[in-house]
Amino acid sequence: MRLFEDMRVGDVFELGDHTFTAASIRAFAGQFDPDPCHLDEEAGRRSPYGAMTASGWHVAVVWMRLMVDYRTREDAELRRRGEPTTDSSVSPGMRRMRWIRPVHAGDTITYRSTIVALRPSASRPEWGLCEWRNAGFNQRGEEVLSFLSTGFVRRQPQRLASGTAAVIS
Amino acid sequence: MRLFEDMRVGDVFELGDHTFTAASIRAFAGQFDPDPCHLDEEAGRRSPYGAMTASGWHVAVVWMRLMVDYRTREDAELRRRGEPTTDSSVSPGMRRMRWIRPVHAGDTITYRSTIVALRPSASRPEWGLCEWRNAGFNQRGEEVLSFLSTGFVRRQPQRLASGTAAVIS
Repeated sequence: MRLFEDMRVGDVFELGDHTFTAASIRAFAGQFDPDPCHLDEEAGRRSPYGAMTASGWHVAVVWMRLMVDYRTREDAELRRRGEPTTDSSVSPGMRRMRWIRPVHAGDTITYRSTIVALRPSASRPEWGLCEWRNAGFNQRGEEVLSFLSTGFVRRQPQRLASGTAAVIS
Repeated sequence: MRLFEDMRVGDVFELGDHTFTAASIRAFAGQFDPDPCHLDEEAGRRSPYGAMTASGWHVAVVWMRLMVDYRTREDAELRRRGEPTTDSSVSPGMRRMRWIRPVHAGDTITYRSTIVALRPSASRPEWGLCEWRNAGFNQRGEEVLSFLSTGFVRRQPQRLASGTAAVIS
């Protein structure tokens, strides 16, 4: 992924989309969230949403998958251009996960992440902290998922040494 | 699961434990978080943690699995005793997910959830809102995971009608 010094508040990552099939909803739920409303059409009809829904965790981890895929594509492009890249980031956590609307079989969710804050790490000068606002939208443009994630991102040693690292916010 | 009126702030749910094998760490990461540090021993050694680690999402969704399994066992016990149960809850989200320490292959994580808040839904009198503090501890007793989750839980209609529903906080 790009280095901390090459990130800007407001940078948008269009991560692509994912269609949740009934089979994939059941496969995830069977492993990690075997609530009947994620496994069975009839139980879904009896639930508050009136239809089988994807586990909120499933909708969230698909964001993670698409973010890693985005970084892999970005790395290839940066290397092609001879620009610096760094190892994957390490995340201390995330905040304010909201499952805003249900995701049903056949829904296609488009994911987008925006950098909302950047700050150097106080204790570890070789790292910066980046905060993303992450969101998923269904095929009607309705927001279904929203959360804030934080990652440690490496700073470029030579820029650090020269003291010219730009801190945006 | 138990009804809203049968929940108390301070109730502790001992969810059991899960051992993260190298194979299960790689299988989850391959599907949802294919960062090299979750897939490859050598990449793990080069990472800030010095060893292959489980995806934080993996450590979190195992909590969900153990919570659903707990509710299933609780339902069977409540039915055996002739006490009321309700359908699974619906969650609007979670907060303050912290991946506190890395989880490595061979680590056994013990999960515990505690009810920290209960309040009736203002807009939907048939539902209450329950907040849990959820945590995972490794075999050395160190906390590796912490987050707050919220669920809508059904209230018992006859108790609602009688106006005796106890609201704890």
